[in-house]
Amino acid sequence: MKIAIAQINPIIGDLSGNAQKMLEMAQQAVAKGARLLLTPELSLCGYPPRDLLLNPSFLEAMTVTLHQLAQDLPANLAVLVGTVDANHQAYTTGGKPLFNSIALLENGKVKEYFHKRLLPTYDVFDEQRYFEAGQQSNHFVLDNLKIGVTICEDLWNDEEFWGKRSYIVNPIADLTTLGVEFIVNLSASPYTVGKPSFREAMLKHIAVRFQQPVIYTNQVGGNDDLLFDGSSFALNRQGEVMCRAKSFTTDLITVEFDETKRDFTLNSVAPVYELEEEEIWHALVLGVKDYAQKCGFSKVVLGLSGGIDSALVATIASAALGKENVLGVLMPSPYSSEHSISDAVALADNLGIKTQILPIGELMQSFDNSLAGLFAGTEFGLAEENIQSRIRGNLLMAIANKFGYLLLSTGNKSEMAVGYCTLYGDMNGGLAVIADVPKTRVYSLCKWLNSHSPLIPENILIKAPSAELKPGQVDQDSLPPYEILDNILQRLIHDHQSVRQIVAAGHDQTVVDKVIQMLARAEFKRRQAPPGLKITDRAFGTGWRMPIASNWNAIKSNYQKIESGHDD
Amino acid sequence: MKIAIAQINPIIGDLSGNAQKMLEMAQQAVAKGARLLLTPELSLCGYPPRDLLLNPSFLEAMTVTLHQLAQDLPANLAVLVGTVDANHQAYTTGGKPLFNSIALLENGKVKEYFHKRLLPTYDVFDEQRYFEAGQQSNHFVLDNLKIGVTICEDLWNDEEFWGKRSYIVNPIADLTTLGVEFIVNLSASPYTVGKPSFREAMLKHIAVRFQQPVIYTNQVGGNDDLLFDGSSFALNRQGEVMCRAKSFTTDLITVEFDETKRDFTLNSVAPVYELEEEEIWHALVLGVKDYAQKCGFSKVVLGLSGGIDSALVATIASAALGKENVLGVLMPSPYSSEHSISDAVALADNLGIKTQILPIGELMQSFDNSLAGLFAGTEFGLAEENIQSRIRGNLLMAIANKFGYLLLSTGNKSEMAVGYCTLYGDMNGGLAVIADVPKTRVYSLCKWLNSHSPLIPENILIKAPSAELKPGQVDQDSLPPYEILDNILQRLIHDHQSVRQIVAAGHDQTVVDKVIQMLARAEFKRRQAPPGLKITDRAFGTGWRMPIASNWNAIKSNYQKIESGHDD
Repeated sequence: MKIAIAQINPIIGDLSGNAQKMLEMAQQAVAKGARLLLTPELSLCGYPPRDLLLNPSFLEAMTVTLHQLAQDLPANLAVLVGTVDANHQAYTTGGKPLFNSIALLENGKVKEYFHKRLLPTYDVFDEQRYFEAGQQSNHFVLDNLKIGVTICEDLWNDEEFWGKRSYIVNPIADLTTLGVEFIVNLSASPYTVGKPSFREAMLKHIAVRFQQPVIYTNQVGGNDDLLFDGSSFALNRQGEVMCRAKSFTTDLITVEFDETKRDFTLNSVAPVYELEEEEIWHALVLGVKDYAQKCGFSKVVLGLSGGIDSALVATIASAALGKENVLGVLMPSPYSSEHSISDAVALADNLGIKTQILPIGELMQSFDNSLAGLFAGTEFGLAEENIQSRIRGNLLMAIANKFGYLLLSTGNKSEMAVGYCTLYGDMNGGLAVIADVPKTRVYSLCKWLNSHSPLIPENILIKAPSAELKPGQVDQDSLPPYEILDNILQRLIHDHQSVRQIVAAGHDQTVVDKVIQMLARAEFKRRQAPPGLKITDRAFGTGWRMPIASNWNAIKSNYQKIESGHDD
Repeated sequence: MKIAIAQINPIIGDLSGNAQKMLEMAQQAVAKGARLLLTPELSLCGYPPRDLLLNPSFLEAMTVTLHQLAQDLPANLAVLVGTVDANHQAYTTGGKPLFNSIALLENGKVKEYFHKRLLPTYDVFDEQRYFEAGQQSNHFVLDNLKIGVTICEDLWNDEEFWGKRSYIVNPIADLTTLGVEFIVNLSASPYTVGKPSFREAMLKHIAVRFQQPVIYTNQVGGNDDLLFDGSSFALNRQGEVMCRAKSFTTDLITVEFDETKRDFTLNSVAPVYELEEEEIWHALVLGVKDYAQKCGFSKVVLGLSGGIDSALVATIASAALGKENVLGVLMPSPYSSEHSISDAVALADNLGIKTQILPIGELMQSFDNSLAGLFAGTEFGLAEENIQSRIRGNLLMAIANKFGYLLLSTGNKSEMAVGYCTLYGDMNGGLAVIADVPKTRVYSLCKWLNSHSPLIPENILIKAPSAELKPGQVDQDSLPPYEILDNILQRLIHDHQSVRQIVAAGHDQTVVDKVIQMLARAEFKRRQAPPGLKITDRAFGTGWRMPIASNWNAIKSNYQKIESGHDD
C-alpha cells in the first residue's frame, strides 16, 4: 500500500481554501498511486484556530466543507483530514463541546471520526479550552491492513524517552496491544530550534520500543507567532527514516508499506539542516513570508539603523518577499554616527533593496519646542530618548499606512527581555521578526549568512551595538555584555533557575539581580508587542503569560530602582 | 461558632505582603471572637499568578511563607489560606505538577491541604495549564462541626441551575452525602456586570436544593485586566443572605453558626448596587486605583479631547487617585473644533484637575515636511490622520516618561472592536480604562454620573462623537450609529450569533457584513492594546484569543475591502 503525506500550509479559518489545497494534493497522490492520504492535525481549519472554535457558524461551516470535500475527493483514495467533532454528551456528563479529531473520508463519505486523546495545555497550547480528550484507541482497517491513528500529542508521552509521564495513558501502547500494522500521526507541531531532529529521535525510540512503523505528518507554514516546519517523515520498524519531506515548505511525499515484509520501504529522504543557524534562517524567512501573505501584504517596510538587528531583518525580508518588495528607511538624528548611514546604505546596496532617508532632527526640535515649557528645568533623559524612537515609529507607520506596507519590527529577544526598546517606537510593527532570537544568536546568524554570501557589511558585525539615542551611547552602558546577559536570560526564562543557581554557575549576584528586575519590569512593554516569530521553547508571546502588576521580585531582595538605558 | 471572612486585596506574587494582610485580618477576626477565618482562593500569591507558577523558586517561597504564616497566626484561630500543593504523583502517573489548594492552618501548623476539583479553562481561565484536578471531597472537623470545603469553580456546576453540566462531578452533592454542617467556598471570581447578584442567585439555588448553608469568600481588587468585586456573603439553609461584605473594597465580616439551629444567623448585610451603572463605576474606579498602585504609580496623565470617552476616564481617574494626581493634556490641531478645547477645559474645571495645552499644528507641519517627498502626489487620508494621533501619543508618553506618570488610554469597546482607533496613537497607555465599555454604555455611565453630580459638561453629552482628524469628521461617517453598532457587536462577540441570526433580528445585511469585516481586520490592533479593565463576560483581553492572519470571513460572502474611518 502506498501512502502519501500532504504537508500543506493552511490559512487559519480558510475552510474552502484549505479543502482545495487538500483536494489538489489528493489528485497528485492518486497520480502517484497512493491508496491513503494523510494531512496535518486540524488541516481543514489550520492550526491553531483558537477562539474561532467558539463560533457556532464556524463549526457548522467546517462540517459542510468536510462533507463537500469527501464528495470531491478522487475515488479509491482514503483521506485522513484534521477537523473537529461534536461531543454530544457534553451537556449531560460535563466536558468540553468538541473533540480535536481526524475524519476518515472515503468513497464520497465521512466514514469515521477519531478523537485526540492527549490534549496539550502548556506553552502556546490551550487545547483543554476547547476540546474533550478522546477515551478510545483509534484505528481503522483499509485493504485488510489495521492502521493505528494518533494526533500530535498522542505520541508525546513515552515515559521511557522522557523519564516521566505527562498523561496517564500512552496511546501507542494501546495500539500495539491491538496489533496494528503501523501507526499514523497527524500533527501541527510548532518549530523550535533543533525540533525536527528531536522529533525523529523521539519517534525512533517509540518505533523501536513498540516495534511499530510510524508515519509523522506535520503542518507547514507560519501562523502569526507560530512556525510549523513540516519535516514530515516515516520510520520503519527499526526506527530508520524511510522518507522525509522538505522542511519549511509545502510538500507531498509517499512511502510504500510492503505487506510481505510488514514494514515501510525506503523512498525519497530530503536532507536535514546540519547547522542550527541554517534551520532558524529558513524558519524566519517562512514566518515573514506567510505572515505577510496571509495578512494580504506584498511589501514590507522597516527602519534601517545601521545596526545588526535591522540588517538581519532586512536580509530575511528580502529572502522572504523579494528585494523589490522591501523598503528600508534611514532616519538619522543629530546623535547618529556617520557609520549608521554608511553601514545601512552598504547593506541596502548589497541586498538591492530600496531606501529612503528621512532625517528626524527637525521633528526632534519641534517636539522640544512643544514640550519646552512643561519640561523646563529637567535634564535630558529617557523621555527625550524615547521621543526620538517614537518619531521614527510614527514615520514608519505613516509609510506603512500610506502605501499599504507591512511594518516589520527589528527588536531581538535580549532587548525584549530587559525592556531595552521603546514602546510605540522601535517596537512598532505588524510582526516582530527576531523577537525570539537572542542578540548573541543574531550575531551567529549573520556570520553564518555571510559565510555563504557576504551581504551584511563587516562593520555592522564588529562595531559596538548602540541605540544612538544620545551622544556616544552604547548598549553596554546599560546592559551587561550580551554573552553574559543571554546566558542569564536563558537560565531565567528557559531553565527556570533560581538566583542561587545562576550565581553558582559563575554569574555576578548584582548582575543577576539587575537582569531579574529588568525582566519583570519590562512585562508591560511585552504585553503590547507585535507577534514575534517563535523559535525557542519559551518565547515572549502566546505561551508567555505573566502578570504585569506583580511584586514577586521584591521578596527576593531589596532591589533598588534601576535605570535601564532607554527604558521608559 | 463565629466565622470571619477576610475579603483581602492581594498583590500578585507579593507573598510576604499578602501573608501580612491575612495576619492583620486574623488579629481583627480574633478580636471579634471568630474561631475560623476564610480567605480567598490562592490568597497567598493572589489570583491569577499565571506563569509565576512555573518558577520553582516561587513555589518554594510559597511553601516557606505559608509555614511562617501558620506560626505567626493567633492561637485558637483556624485559618483557610489559598495556596498550591505539589502533585507528587505527577511524574509517575502523568498529570500537572500542582494542585490549586486550600491549606488549613491551626496551632502553628499547616494541618491539611484541600484540592480544587473543578478547574476552569475558558475565557480568562487557564487552570489546566498549571493544575491537576483534585479527586476527593474536601471537609474537615472543627469543634465537632463537619465543614465542607470548596474552591471557586467547585460550586459552578449545578446542572439544575445551568440546565447543563460543565463537569462530571458536582462537589456539593458529594459534600451533602457526607453530611457536612455547612460549606465554605474560597473564590477569586472576576467581576462582570451583574455578577454579584448572579452569584447570590446561583448559590441560593444550591443552598435550597441541597439544604446547605454556604459561605462565599471572594477576592477583591484589580489585577491587570481582571477586577474582583469581593461581595462575599453567607446564605442560610433557606438561601437567605445572612451577611454580606462590601463590594469593591477590602472588608472583614463575620457570621455566626448557631449549633442548635444548625444554621447561620443574621449579621451585617452590606447593600448591593441597584443600578448597573453604579456597579460598573465602582469596578472601574477600583481597577484604575489598583493598577496604578500595584505598578507603583501615584499620578496619571491622559489626553483630553473634549469628547465623552476621555471625559469619563478623567472622572474615573479623579475618583480613583484624587484630582491632584490627574493631568489632562489638550492637544488641539487645526482640525479641532472650538468646543474640543472649551469642553475639555470645562470638564477639567469641574473635576479640579490640572491641564496642559500642547497644540500639535507645528508638529503636523514638521511631519508633512519630512514626508513631503515620499508622499508627493498622494491624497490626504488615513496615513495623515494617524500621524496626528501618533503625535499626541508621543507627547503623552513623553510626559509619562519624564514625570513617572501612568498614561491612561481612553478608547471604548466599540472602537476597539471595529478598529476605529490608532495603534501607537490614541491606543497608547499602560491601562485601557474603558476598553470593555461599549460606547452606548459610556453614555449611560456619564448620564448616571451627572444625575448625582453634574461633572461632565452637557455639551460633551449631546454633541456628535468625532475623532477630529480631518475637517468636519464625525464617527458616523465611518461607523453605523452606535446603538446599531453596539447591538450587532453584542450579538457577534457575546452571543456568537451568525449573520443570518443578526439579520433576522432586524439588522441590515450590508451593515452586519461590514461590522464583521471590521471586527476581524482590527485583530492586529487589539493584539497590541494595553490591558483593558474587564467588565463583561467577553472582553478583548486575556480571554479573547483570536488569530490575526486568518481568513474565516471570506467564506461567508465576497466582502469588498472596506475603508474603516481612521483605521490604519
